[in-house]
Order: sequence, then C-alpha cells, then structure tokens
Amino acid sequence: MGHAATLPRNEEGIATVVGILKQQFGERLQTGHSIREQHGHTTTWIENQLPDAVVFAQSTQEVSDIVKACAAHKVPVIAYGTGTSLEGHVNAPAGGISVDLSQMDQVLEVNAGDLDCRVQPGVTREALNTHLRDQGLFFPIDPGATASLGGMTATRASGTNAVRYGTMKDNVLSLEAVMPDGAVIRTASRARKSSAGYDLTRLMVGSEGTLGMITEITLRLQGIPEAISAARCSFPSVEVASKTVMAVIQYGLPVARIELMDAQLVKAVNAYSKLSLPETPLLLLEFHGSEAGVAEQAETFGMLAEEEGGTGYEATATLEERNKLWQARHDAYWAMIQACPGRKGIATDVCVPISRFAEAVTAAEAKATEMNLFAPIVGHAGDGNFHASIMIDMEDADEVARAGAFVSWLNELAISMDGTCTGEHGIGQGKRPYLIKELGAGTVGIMGAIKSAIDPDNIMNPGKILPE
Amino acid sequence: MGHAATLPRNEEGIATVVGILKQQFGERLQTGHSIREQHGHTTTWIENQLPDAVVFAQSTQEVSDIVKACAAHKVPVIAYGTGTSLEGHVNAPAGGISVDLSQMDQVLEVNAGDLDCRVQPGVTREALNTHLRDQGLFFPIDPGATASLGGMTATRASGTNAVRYGTMKDNVLSLEAVMPDGAVIRTASRARKSSAGYDLTRLMVGSEGTLGMITEITLRLQGIPEAISAARCSFPSVEVASKTVMAVIQYGLPVARIELMDAQLVKAVNAYSKLSLPETPLLLLEFHGSEAGVAEQAETFGMLAEEEGGTGYEATATLEERNKLWQARHDAYWAMIQACPGRKGIATDVCVPISRFAEAVTAAEAKATEMNLFAPIVGHAGDGNFHASIMIDMEDADEVARAGAFVSWLNELAISMDGTCTGEHGIGQGKRPYLIKELGAGTVGIMGAIKSAIDPDNIMNPGKILPE
Repeated sequence: MGHAATLPRNEEGIATVVGILKQQFGERLQTGHSIREQHGHTTTWIENQLPDAVVFAQSTQEVSDIVKACAAHKVPVIAYGTGTSLEGHVNAPAGGISVDLSQMDQVLEVNAGDLDCRVQPGVTREALNTHLRDQGLFFPIDPGATASLGGMTATRASGTNAVRYGTMKDNVLSLEAVMPDGAVIRTASRARKSSAGYDLTRLMVGSEGTLGMITEITLRLQGIPEAISAARCSFPSVEVASKTVMAVIQYGLPVARIELMDAQLVKAVNAYSKLSLPETPLLLLEFHGSEAGVAEQAETFGMLAEEEGGTGYEATATLEERNKLWQARHDAYWAMIQACPGRKGIATDVCVPISRFAEAVTAAEAKATEMNLFAPIVGHAGDGNFHASIMIDMEDADEVARAGAFVSWLNELAISMDGTCTGEHGIGQGKRPYLIKELGAGTVGIMGAIKSAIDPDNIMNPGKILPE
Repeated sequence: MGHAATLPRNEEGIATVVGILKQQFGERLQTGHSIREQHGHTTTWIENQLPDAVVFAQSTQEVSDIVKACAAHKVPVIAYGTGTSLEGHVNAPAGGISVDLSQMDQVLEVNAGDLDCRVQPGVTREALNTHLRDQGLFFPIDPGATASLGGMTATRASGTNAVRYGTMKDNVLSLEAVMPDGAVIRTASRARKSSAGYDLTRLMVGSEGTLGMITEITLRLQGIPEAISAARCSFPSVEVASKTVMAVIQYGLPVARIELMDAQLVKAVNAYSKLSLPETPLLLLEFHGSEAGVAEQAETFGMLAEEEGGTGYEATATLEERNKLWQARHDAYWAMIQACPGRKGIATDVCVPISRFAEAVTAAEAKATEMNLFAPIVGHAGDGNFHASIMIDMEDADEVARAGAFVSWLNELAISMDGTCTGEHGIGQGKRPYLIKELGAGTVGIMGAIKSAIDPDNIMNPGKILPE
C-alpha cells in the first residue's frame, strides 16, 4: 500500500557525492543497509525507499557543505530527525543523502523575558521541556511521538493542545535554513510580530524539507500555568459530544485540551486498563490558568456538558487524579494494539470545520464497520481534527486493500466538507494524490512554481508534497 | 521625503488597457485627476504617484478580467481598499490601473458554529463587527484606521489587541485571490488547521498586493466576551512600565490590550481632554473573560504594577467608566494634532523583543529631543511594537530632513536589537531600504525569486516591498 513511486536515480552524481562526503565526514557517513533502512523508515505502511548514505551533521556549516555537494551534482538530500513522520516523508524515491540532524540537539538560547528560545532541529520536544522546566516555562506543541522540533516545524505539527496554543505555524517566530544552493538564510527577526515582506517563516513551516533544510528554530514559549485541572464526561453519541464541543468553543472557554474518544476505543481501553467507563463516546479536557480560573472553567464545562446531555462528569485539579482521569487517553494506543495483536495501526488525519465534525466521525465509524475494518477514533475535537487508527493485518491483502479504500474515502469526505486530508501529519508521499482534490490545480500550480523557483533542480526531498 | 522612485512606464500598454477596460466598465472606469490622485494617496509623506485609471470592481470575475487585460499588455495593477496604508502601498510608480475594491463589501457567509466568516475585501472591520454583533461574535483585529479587511490582510495588520488575539496572519483561515495571470485560486480549506502543502494563505497575508489581488477572505471570529474590564496605571519611567509589561506577559495574564503612552503624549492629552493624569508614562489595559475572570485579571495586574512601582492604579468593569479610563488613548491622535497645529503626524512602526522595549522607547525619546523633533509615543507594549508620531512642519525642509534621519535611525536601532522596521504597517515604498538590512540579501533574494516565479512580468503592485 502507499504511493511510493520510484523516481529516476542520478547514479553518477550519487557516487560522486558519497565519495566527497566520505572524505569530509569519515565515520559520520554511513552506507550500511540497516542504517539506511532505518533512515527511510517512518511510522507508515508506505514501502521503505532507502537513501544511499546517511550523514550525521553537527552544525549549520556542515549541513551547508552537504547541500552544496548535493547541489553541485544534482543529488537528492533529505533531512531526518527522529523518523516519526507518518506519510513517507523521509523516503528516498530517487536515492540520495539522508542528513541525520539528531546530533544537532542543543538549546542555544532561552530568553525568559521574551518567552522565546532558539534551538537546533534535533532537540526533541521532551528534551526542550526538560530544559525549560526550572525556568517555569514550557513549549506547548505535543504531537503523539517523541518528535524533533525540526521535524515538527517541517510538517507543521500540532497535537492535543492546539485548540489553546495553536500549531507550529503559530509558535515558530523565525528559523534558519540551508537553501538548495547551500546558502544559509534566516526568515525573520525575533520581534513577536512583523510586517516585513513575505512570510518566509510560515512558508518554510510545513514545507517538509522540500524548500530547504531547517538548521535553527526560534520558538515562542509559555509560562507553566499556575494551575491545571482536568475533566471527563461521557456522551450518548458522537453528535452530542460534538455539540458540547461547539458550545465550549462558542462560549469562548479557553480549554487547553478537548479530546474525543469514540465508543470502540473506550471499550478497548476498558479492557486494557481495567477501567469501567461507559462504553460510549468520551470527552477528556484540560484547563490551564489561575486556581480560581481553572475551577471556574471546569465548572462551566460541566454545566455546558450537562445541558447537552453528558453524563458521569468528573473533574479534578490534583496531579494524581488528573493522570487517572486521563489514563484512558494515555493508554489508547496500547489498548488498540492489545485489542488487535499482530496488527499494524495506520492513522488517518482529516480535519473538518467543527460544525461537520460529528457528521464526519459518525460517517467514518459507519464506513469502517461496513468495510469490516476496526478503526477506533481519537479526535482533537476543538480543532475538528481526528485520527481513525485502522488496525490492519498486513498479511491480509484484501484487508490492506480495504484499508486503502477507506483512507481514500475518508480523505475525500473531509475535502467534500471543506476540510483537509491532513490536519497535522503533512502530505509526504501518502497524501499527494489528494492535494489537488483539496486545493485545486491552480493553487497546487502556485506551490509548484515556488518549488521550482527555490529548488530548480528538485534536490530537496524530491517526490514529496507536490505531484510529479 | 520618501522613497518613491519613478519606474519606466509602458505607455502603449497602458493606453490599450484603459481602452479595453473603458469598454467593459463604462462609468465604473474613471480617469479624472482628482480621483486618480485620491487613489495614489495614503496616510503618508511619500509623494503621490497617480495611477492612469481607477476601476471600481464588483466581483471576483471582474477583478480577473482586469488582471487578464493588464497581464496581456504588461500593465501594472494595484489594489485599493480605503487608502489608509502608511508607506505608499497604493502609489503607482509605473502608472497603471488602480482597482478600487470598496464596492466588494459583502459579508458572504457567517458560520457561527465554526466561529468563522467569509467576506469580500472591501468590507471594513467596523462594518464586519456591526454585522456580527447580533450573533454575539466579533473580529478582534483593530488597526487605528477604518481599514478594509482586504487591505488589512495584504499588510498583515494588527492593532491594540494583537497581544491576545494575534495579527491578521493568525486570523485569516483561507483566502481567494486573482493571480497575475488572472487565474482565481483559493489557498486553503475552511478547516481550523491543516498541514496540506505550502502555507499560501500566510504567503499572501502581508504580500501587499505584489503576488495577487485578494478577492475573498475567510476569517476566524471570537465570541464577544461575557465581561470586559479596564485598568490604568502611571509609572515613574518607561523602564518601570516596561518591567511591569514583562511581568504581565511572563505571569501569563491573558490581557486583551496593554498600551503604553509616553510622558509627552500624556501631557498633550491632559491639555486636549482636560484630564489631570500624572505626566509620566501610562499603561492602559483591557481584560476579556468571565465576570470573575476579568476581576481577577485586573487585581493581578494591580498587584504586579504596584510591585514594580506603578502608582494611581484604577480599574473598572462598567462601560462608561472604561471609556473614561481609556479616554487618554482614544484622544491621543487629536491631542497631538492640537499640540502642533498645522503639522503632519508621521508614524514610525518598529517592533523589538519585549526585553528591549524600554531601551528602544527611551532611546527614541532621547534621540527625538536631541534632533529637536516632537515625537510622542504610543506602544502596543505587549508585542514590543511602538509608534513615535513625528509631528512635522512639512514647509520646513530642515525639519523634514531631520525627521527622515530620525526614522532611518530608529529603523536601524530596532534592527540592531533583533527587531523589525515594521510591526504592522508593512514595507510598501517607504521601508524598502530596510528590508535587506533586517533580513539579509539571501532572505530577500528568496522573496524576489518567489515574486518572479509568480509574477514574472512584475505587474502586481510594482515597486513595493522588494528592492529593484
């Protein structure tokens, strides 16, 4: 399954560049099969396409040297962070050089007074938050995986608290990148806002390594909230849960997280975590603010949920109790795996206007059942974004084909609702067929014109985002 | 004063296009001197450069027809909203066609459940808020002027409550634009977040009409807060006021507005509005939230301000009292005009990291005094953005020259502090010399490559943003 067409390889150029880089990088250039396989690998069902060599870069200057060598010989160059992307983003369909940035893992600067920091791309979000904790600061964006901040920037990632703190596009102030000719640019100053020319920061955020390689990121930070509270509530249907979400958003309640789990996922979690939640749709919430503020928020939510028909409302402000309340969500992934031993979970990622969220989730549940697929759903309900995790027996060709048809159907459903085929995972290889369906040939044509202008030889992560 | 170099004119093309458009638009195409003068005019001291004709467009199709005619004959085409831009954005240095979009003033759709709406570019922010009021919704971005939403999008505008609600980049979900070949594109779906390809929405926001002409905008909306409160506090120095602002930001207090007025502005307002405020730096604040929430916010602010050395703290939650508290800010413009009869106020627009705000404001005050200029300051302190309004006698060539030198000095000061020469007004013609100083030739070169790829004949608002 997947859309991993092979592209023509520039054998001579690749051999030349591997030779040049071997001289400069010695043991930091690797060509063994298993390391190459690992660097083509992502959390995906798309076939693995190996790069020809992996180089471990340690500085912007080294990245620039690598890109210059690749540019001189028209050889593909692909950034690699932690390999947690989901749509074949680090595959090498035309071979080339994988640049592993995991050793560029320094927090270069924290400006507590400005609530910002500057990091290298290999810093993971967990490492950054560990680094910041003593200063009472945190970086809010939290994709499920132990992702690197470079990768999160490149895919315009978000996670459970985007409803309050936005996505990477809202939290990157500026970045440094090595462009396809090896030149190093910085996209913006450190001012919190600017109207100085084209917004190259936002152009690079989400460009998936196809326009340049990100070598530094200046991020907005948040103060750790004085108080955090959590709440949980069950609902008779996805529709009623979604109505509650809309009421919360319209009320202006500044929820930090509002996550939906569908009935089959709650059932799986009950089995895995020995819980006894009602096996109906569940909303889990988190509130950030002052002591009084989070108490008021939780109370207001309880009132809105009850008005709409929620039951079993619980709220708490203590850490231990919060973890218990949220256990269902934290255990969701492992519960699905246990429910389906030997199967691989493939996550969809559509996002629709919130008013269509209930309809989309309900239709997805019905369609999966109709197609005899097990695909429990978690949703970042405040954004209209949800993931159906299709649990697939990869040995069962018919099931794999049905799963493929389901993904395709779901992407097109979201597009028909004026939504997107990807809320936070990116296009990569897997979603390329949907980009034109979503945005039209004219819009994608403008993207192609930008790509050609900036990377005329198509060396930066070729075969991603744009159709051939 | 100003940087309004004339560009070569394509006389034959212009004459041909005016003839073609006259046929299609009849009386909706105007060539009289005064209307052309008005359409080259902005709130600026940059010399007026008239377009050759003004066309009043009424639909996206008409805008496309106009752009196609201009494209066929390589004639400049310039969007015009309300003429409130500040840096010569609508000047026609190579002549051409001004497209007046003020008749495209329809709110096309309000999706209350999704907190979004779709508008034509000629809708002003006041008109939109009047339209939304009955539904309990509002659009938060508030530049000083009665601006159109098309113009606000094109300049990446913000205003007093960006500290809470962000700028236009954060509040445009998607937009429709006519590209330089006349094709109509839409940049994104209506989903609240997306990772689908390059962020063309953010590329168009702030592109000042140089990449395409915006014909529809999908905007995020907010619920009108349950309660609003206001506060005011005086400080012995800009430094102490700024320390308080930093404390507020680090505390995570979700202020909706936090505005600084410097001592000379307070003095002018005392004279104009018959107030008796201490003639020292003043902070004015507004809080949005629940009844209890805004009361708590105001109280917390009072505590932080007092700790830092603020005096005369006052707060209120009633509308009448709020207006009284904020009167000094509302009257600031007229107070400056009255203080300097016959002079023209020219606004600077630098934005620096908040930790450098006090230093930048204090240096600007000292430099103006040293240069014998009267330039009172208002600041969007929570963003690090401030405007020195230089009150200039335009008949006094020496004063005009000194003002020019001051602007230049201030832009360079901000850039040296890792800030920007424009927080919210845009580059236009006036700030073109500073773009490379701020971002470097490599970064501006990438902007130029994008411009050339999308608009190879340079017909869209030529002579703006990018250096020749």
